[in-house]
Amino acid sequence: VSRTIGVDLGGTKVLAAVVDDGELISSAKVPTPASGGASAVVGAIERAVGQAVDEAGGGEVVGVGLGAPGVVDPDSGTVVAAPNLTGFDRPVPLAALLADALGQERVVVDNDVNAAAVGEHRLGAGRGVDDLLVVFVGTGVGGGMVLGGRLRRGPGGLAGEIGHMVVAERDGRRCSCGHPGHVEAYAGRGAMEAEARRCHEGGERSLLVEAASGKRIKSGAWRDALEAGDAVATRLVDDAVVALGAGLASVVHAVDLELVVVGGGLADKLGATFVGRVEQAVRSRLLVPTSPLRVVPAALGDASGVLGAALLPT
Amino acid sequence: VSRTIGVDLGGTKVLAAVVDDGELISSAKVPTPASGGASAVVGAIERAVGQAVDEAGGGEVVGVGLGAPGVVDPDSGTVVAAPNLTGFDRPVPLAALLADALGQERVVVDNDVNAAAVGEHRLGAGRGVDDLLVVFVGTGVGGGMVLGGRLRRGPGGLAGEIGHMVVAERDGRRCSCGHPGHVEAYAGRGAMEAEARRCHEGGERSLLVEAASGKRIKSGAWRDALEAGDAVATRLVDDAVVALGAGLASVVHAVDLELVVVGGGLADKLGATFVGRVEQAVRSRLLVPTSPLRVVPAALGDASGVLGAALLPT
Repeated sequence: VSRTIGVDLGGTKVLAAVVDDGELISSAKVPTPASGGASAVVGAIERAVGQAVDEAGGGEVVGVGLGAPGVVDPDSGTVVAAPNLTGFDRPVPLAALLADALGQERVVVDNDVNAAAVGEHRLGAGRGVDDLLVVFVGTGVGGGMVLGGRLRRGPGGLAGEIGHMVVAERDGRRCSCGHPGHVEAYAGRGAMEAEARRCHEGGERSLLVEAASGKRIKSGAWRDALEAGDAVATRLVDDAVVALGAGLASVVHAVDLELVVVGGGLADKLGATFVGRVEQAVRSRLLVPTSPLRVVPAALGDASGVLGAALLPT
Repeated sequence: VSRTIGVDLGGTKVLAAVVDDGELISSAKVPTPASGGASAVVGAIERAVGQAVDEAGGGEVVGVGLGAPGVVDPDSGTVVAAPNLTGFDRPVPLAALLADALGQERVVVDNDVNAAAVGEHRLGAGRGVDDLLVVFVGTGVGGGMVLGGRLRRGPGGLAGEIGHMVVAERDGRRCSCGHPGHVEAYAGRGAMEAEARRCHEGGERSLLVEAASGKRIKSGAWRDALEAGDAVATRLVDDAVVALGAGLASVVHAVDLELVVVGGGLADKLGATFVGRVEQAVRSRLLVPTSPLRVVPAALGDASGVLGAALLPT
């Protein structure tokens, strides 16, 4: 038996899948409960897993892996803090709760970005490469660092926190974490939207902001605004490319890599052109132009999280 | 027999030492020839090694390690380029030439900063730690990255090039490598001196520049100017602390570390106060204040290069 269950626990939905040798056999989605505390979330995971297993025609599984949106201690399977989940404002021993609820001995819980990075490394654009960084450019900018074929966490769990690399020490835009000049303050969709709204309110008319009205500006809207030549969107995406290029060049000058995989909602929508521009931005900042570094788009899209989670117990 | 010979090949002097189990038994210094090509340099190394061996009372050695100031291919022992050495403007198979000249089978040649980082890791302030960065703050800013107990080079040989991490993408001071906003443009003594002279010539009187007159401003002069309250020196050292803090915070957010060792001529002269300020600057920029990271002064001073070189063949 090589089947495992992967769970991508998000702030709005729980995605569960049965995965066999890297192949997705079945999947099911349920909404993440907005109230009821941790036990309600565990119940929702149980339902999603049950549906996915039923759809796969039942059968034995050898383990469950889950990616959670927050700070996780993977050794104990505890979600230390996950502000977007009800009942997770204090530590929740999620692996133990799920082992009990699902009747599974082997349950592994990790951070969702780590799980997705494992997915891209083992099954996606990073297959066969031992030293790589997987960067996800979405609402924020996160990543997973793989060195010597293994996901690196580091002694303080900060490895791969690419969004918080410093690219503009002085007078930099302020990051959601409070520090100035971080990559995420330029390349995270949340920060980019805030900046676009500031520009628009400052009198620089932006189709991007007008089209979204009061609603969240989605990744597809950024792509559409770029294609329509919107000046604010064009400038802010340029800034994002520069910040990612500088941050990734710093990664290369710190540990050197052969591959950077760029995924996440915004990068997926902006596509290969965006990733190619990021590659150019990185290469143009390297000390040695002969570096073997390649920067490529992620291959698994939204599925990286659930596929990577399914690999965690293996 | 556990004795080895270490050679620190510099632009002005060749330092050779006999080292036994990490202990320096004897050493000798000769000037680096300014003409005569690679064979003259090999001859100088031969003389320095001969003197050190004589002083140690002769005896067998099991290998020779050498740190060279330039781009080195450690696998072949070739110095690819070393602009500060006569005759090294094209690749020189230094390990093979030395094996022949010294009658030694085992000769290992590496970059001088890598050798010094190995010295601090194995015999200095990094003893017993598996994940650390050794940064040398001197004329430039270089470093060696040790992960899992081993010096990391990376597929393009760029690992540990901390001086070229980007900390000010826009309007940053220009680095000697041509790119804007690198750590070295703020924290390298060469760049700091150039900036101090610009300030002085711009009318901001600096004791630091006046005292040096037309000569190179040495590390000790920076310390003296700081102690005397020189405004230009104070501001530029503040800038260096900020740039190092930002660059090292980026390293932590990329791979995470438990230890950063800070050495090199300028850091050694400015002492523990400077290193403590760098530690504060790093910590204040970390996403998680509970990080176990420590930043400490190097322990071996100038000897790190020759001691580390002696460890290369072991």
